[in-house]
Amino acid sequence: MAKNVSDEHGSKGVETISSSSSCQSSSSPRSSPYVHEVGVPPKQNLLKEIAAAVKETLFADDPLRHFKDQPSSKKFILGLQAIFPILEWGKHYNLSKFKGDLIAGLTIASLCIPQDIGYAKLANLEPQYGLYSSFVPPLIYAFMGSSRDIAIGPVAVVSLLLGSLLQDEIDSSTNPVGYRHLAFTATFFAGLTQFILGFLRLGFLIDFLSHAAIVGFMGGAAVTIALQQLKGLLGIKKFTKDTNIVSVMSSVFSSARHGWNWNTILIGISFLIFLSVTKYIGKKQKKFFWVPAIAPLIFVIISTVSVYATRADKHGVEIVKNIRKGCWEETEQPKQSESTTGGINPPSVKEIFFSGQYAGKGFKIGVVSSMIALTEAVAIGRTFASMKDYQLDGNKEMIALGTMNIVGSMTSCYVATGSFSRSAVNYMSGCETAVSNIVMACVYTPNAILASIIISAVVGLVDIEAVTLIWKIDKFDFIACMGAFFGVVFSSVEVGLVIAVSISFAKILLQVTRPRTAILGKVPRTATVYRNIQQYPDATKVPGILIVRVDSAIYFSNSNYVKERILRWLADEEEHVKENSQPRFQYLIIEMGPVTDIDTCGIHALEELFRALQKRDIKLVLANPGPVVVDKLHASKFQELIGEGRIFLTVADAVRTCYSKMELEP
Amino acid sequence: MAKNVSDEHGSKGVETISSSSSCQSSSSPRSSPYVHEVGVPPKQNLLKEIAAAVKETLFADDPLRHFKDQPSSKKFILGLQAIFPILEWGKHYNLSKFKGDLIAGLTIASLCIPQDIGYAKLANLEPQYGLYSSFVPPLIYAFMGSSRDIAIGPVAVVSLLLGSLLQDEIDSSTNPVGYRHLAFTATFFAGLTQFILGFLRLGFLIDFLSHAAIVGFMGGAAVTIALQQLKGLLGIKKFTKDTNIVSVMSSVFSSARHGWNWNTILIGISFLIFLSVTKYIGKKQKKFFWVPAIAPLIFVIISTVSVYATRADKHGVEIVKNIRKGCWEETEQPKQSESTTGGINPPSVKEIFFSGQYAGKGFKIGVVSSMIALTEAVAIGRTFASMKDYQLDGNKEMIALGTMNIVGSMTSCYVATGSFSRSAVNYMSGCETAVSNIVMACVYTPNAILASIIISAVVGLVDIEAVTLIWKIDKFDFIACMGAFFGVVFSSVEVGLVIAVSISFAKILLQVTRPRTAILGKVPRTATVYRNIQQYPDATKVPGILIVRVDSAIYFSNSNYVKERILRWLADEEEHVKENSQPRFQYLIIEMGPVTDIDTCGIHALEELFRALQKRDIKLVLANPGPVVVDKLHASKFQELIGEGRIFLTVADAVRTCYSKMELEP
Repeated sequence: MAKNVSDEHGSKGVETISSSSSCQSSSSPRSSPYVHEVGVPPKQNLLKEIAAAVKETLFADDPLRHFKDQPSSKKFILGLQAIFPILEWGKHYNLSKFKGDLIAGLTIASLCIPQDIGYAKLANLEPQYGLYSSFVPPLIYAFMGSSRDIAIGPVAVVSLLLGSLLQDEIDSSTNPVGYRHLAFTATFFAGLTQFILGFLRLGFLIDFLSHAAIVGFMGGAAVTIALQQLKGLLGIKKFTKDTNIVSVMSSVFSSARHGWNWNTILIGISFLIFLSVTKYIGKKQKKFFWVPAIAPLIFVIISTVSVYATRADKHGVEIVKNIRKGCWEETEQPKQSESTTGGINPPSVKEIFFSGQYAGKGFKIGVVSSMIALTEAVAIGRTFASMKDYQLDGNKEMIALGTMNIVGSMTSCYVATGSFSRSAVNYMSGCETAVSNIVMACVYTPNAILASIIISAVVGLVDIEAVTLIWKIDKFDFIACMGAFFGVVFSSVEVGLVIAVSISFAKILLQVTRPRTAILGKVPRTATVYRNIQQYPDATKVPGILIVRVDSAIYFSNSNYVKERILRWLADEEEHVKENSQPRFQYLIIEMGPVTDIDTCGIHALEELFRALQKRDIKLVLANPGPVVVDKLHASKFQELIGEGRIFLTVADAVRTCYSKMELEP
Repeated sequence: MAKNVSDEHGSKGVETISSSSSCQSSSSPRSSPYVHEVGVPPKQNLLKEIAAAVKETLFADDPLRHFKDQPSSKKFILGLQAIFPILEWGKHYNLSKFKGDLIAGLTIASLCIPQDIGYAKLANLEPQYGLYSSFVPPLIYAFMGSSRDIAIGPVAVVSLLLGSLLQDEIDSSTNPVGYRHLAFTATFFAGLTQFILGFLRLGFLIDFLSHAAIVGFMGGAAVTIALQQLKGLLGIKKFTKDTNIVSVMSSVFSSARHGWNWNTILIGISFLIFLSVTKYIGKKQKKFFWVPAIAPLIFVIISTVSVYATRADKHGVEIVKNIRKGCWEETEQPKQSESTTGGINPPSVKEIFFSGQYAGKGFKIGVVSSMIALTEAVAIGRTFASMKDYQLDGNKEMIALGTMNIVGSMTSCYVATGSFSRSAVNYMSGCETAVSNIVMACVYTPNAILASIIISAVVGLVDIEAVTLIWKIDKFDFIACMGAFFGVVFSSVEVGLVIAVSISFAKILLQVTRPRTAILGKVPRTATVYRNIQQYPDATKVPGILIVRVDSAIYFSNSNYVKERILRWLADEEEHVKENSQPRFQYLIIEMGPVTDIDTCGIHALEELFRALQKRDIKLVLANPGPVVVDKLHASKFQELIGEGRIFLTVADAVRTCYSKMELEP
């Protein structure tokens, strides 16, 4: 990388620092006391450069570092462990760990069963598919995932997104079987996308969804989900299929004219209050942490029993029953309907569309939901990894998540991913009998109860604290956040997503198009420190010399801006100098430290700048260019163009040399 | 911008540099000998910040700077001059300038007339539309454009692009009238797009087409255009409509079986050789610069006369005539056909589709061709501006080009833009009679002659020298260049364009996703200079302290990478330290100089890094953060998190302080 480093210092007045070297012709005519021989043969350079760039881009985490210097038998075991991390941590598994896992698993199971049913409703699927998705995917993940803390299952945002995208293609109320098939198709392609992204090590692509955009998107989705639950909470029968706030509120108010079902509302609201109280207790008193976790299940059981006992469903309280019944009526194949009642996931590989028009639609929906699912899973994985201080291999995670969703799509699951509201749910494999029992119980659960569980679960997604912090730190991030939020709330989940991604991209592009530049001055009581005079107003300018720092790589997207901005700084300063009748500028020093790279356009811009300065009789001097930049300046013969002794190690060296030459000139 | 700058130094051992300040509570408990009061009141900060960001993005060239401190009458005149620059330079116009302009204009007219006809053919339009497009648009530009050197007219690439896009919608051979109407519609919307981009000051968007991509695109287009001319040059009758090299060559070879027209080929090849010779003469002998310029016209006239005299068209030499005749037959409105013969642009405002399906198609085509046209015009404008050292207002240019194309679309012109092969053609308004006469003469020009003129003109677009330089300087640019070239040659103009833009974007995104990081060491024989040890292998590491520099703003797209890369540097170095039984690391210093900005994700990453280091008992120290970063670290309370005295002005200060503390510890 660092060949042809040939910074030069022209004057004897400079501190005798020299980083000069040139690996081919080290017999430079000028006397350089320290010549750095760089050991890389020039011919291998290109290949090495490309290899290094590919490695940093795709294998930044150096996944094969453990394999180095190992015998081949050990390599095989390491390879197996890389694919199935369970082989690594399984060795150290013991009874006391199992006890902890068991308790956690049971606690979580009781929390997530009502949630699963609710999330399945968001995806317009029958409740048992939510439960199925909490069974197979965590099992697969347990074998392949590298995170020991991530909890797998259906999540609110992905369920909502999937439901809203699928509903656009097939109406779930008129064609529930086709809808379900499309859901499995989308799940299959979501898994495939995740797997391929991980396999090709393209995991970094999801970094382009910024944190701010996700906060806004999640908040918007939470509001949308909560609004959708008004249907169940208020017992409204005719409800809009749209998710935006305007349609939902007009739906609510138009239904108010027909009279609300006060029984339902009473159940829903009182349960919502109850849930909030238990949440508050769990937050205040750490030892009651299990109260909010277990509360929904208890109340589901109590309400189901009481509804069954009082037959409240005859008095207008809508219950989940009819969906369940509908499902039984639909299942065409008797075999499958049989296995459905058993509580174990029935196979669904025959239900996936692998060809036809719906394969393409399923693919599109799968890709979109896979990205959102990945974003959530990776964010959670990273949070736990940084808390417990271990490294997470994002690409390996994606392969695990992908496999899990591919298998899931063949066993009646829809898209599952990491969920914040659970932990250690991947050990829940023991409780399938409990699951199947509770599914039966859920038949009499009032819709209002489910609605309150969902509302209570998603309210936590509206992260006011994070929004406040984003506002304080970065206004542009705040715009992205609000754009995503209002996009979801006022239009649809997809529009919110597009807004979030576009603003994130726009931010990157803006940064690259308009890099910062600054005038430097000498910080008082230092000999060599030159800093931005806006940041350090005490810093003094050097008469006759203008020092500008460019704060970014100079690429085609900003090269013209950089050139023109520097000329504008010069014009401004020249005006200022004239007014105060100070000496005119003879040198322009560009501090190149932050310029990490330059391309052909950047070099053109520098050449144009050099010519423009030549016409004004001002000499161009560069300070502290990085290795890549020096390389390219050399390759383009820019160094020869601006002349010898014009590139220095530090700004201080450059200033001292220029200053000493200036005194010789008139 | 630079409020709450509160860098701290904790030890008395530091050089007494301090840039510390806090503008609200300057009564800091620690003794800071130099407190920099920053004069910006904190409350105005947000608005000022936004205003500054908007100004740098959209008004980087400060277009209103001349208006400052002027009386309002002067402001009005300046405003008029801003819209019509002719008012400014018109004052100084005199007879001697006019003489120069006249000669230049006549020379150019003689060069561009055969070219115009050829370019019109590329766009599948009748030859007179090429000439019309060389008349009105330059006239408009002369009044509104800010460049004094740019030459306006139809250009090869835009003509080809327009022809290929329009042909996809309407077949020019079966429906030439509808085709022409769509061409004017596309021209109208191209002008509108340019005008709007300029008016909204979004001109910087075209910076995203990188130089390398344009070189490749132009080269590919030149090859495609030259290939298309094989039809005329070889006198082939049945020729493919596709532009890719495979279809064209198979077309050429299949026609060879039917026998070529040797008369046509002889005329074409001999003329091509003649043109190349005159070009060579013009290049070698500067005083014969007019030879290549005038040669095409002379040969057009000679060949036309000889064809007319010998009636060679009866012997199989195809001539332009039939196109011209076709045009006369098509024109439905007698009025227009009358004015067509007069040699002055006929109005075409009624031919533009403002509604219906073709309006949308015309809009799409217009937007695409406007971007390519703009790229070419701005590139030329900038070249001349930097040669003659004046500033070009890109946005004002766009307004001029847009107006010119809008008016052009109403006066029978198709998309015109700046053209490299002419200069000062904007003064050609005097030669309309000559134009109309020569149009008549062109009726008998052989197709082979036109083909050679076009080939000779576009060969210059294949810029081998630029490609070589790109290869030398930046390999990624080279890939973009080749991608665009082969996309155009092997597929189509549109595909090449998409490839060029995608690779350009990918490059920006890659830079932002994988910023460089480096380990720093102290350069020998300096007291305070810390540099990349890969670039300066003599630089020595400080025992017990790891110094890392991050070479980019830390944003959501790279925050995780940066964090993990720093931890990987640490792991690598710790391994190295263990092997050599050196003291373990106690401090990690991050040189933040090149970190120009940080967002919420970046701060999260720093917090996670801090926690990871804490677990390893390593202290995190920052050096030289910029004003924006200090602001945000303060807002996010990161400064409080890492503790006092952990942010220094320079790496040297940080090292000195850390070193003195380390000696106290065990």
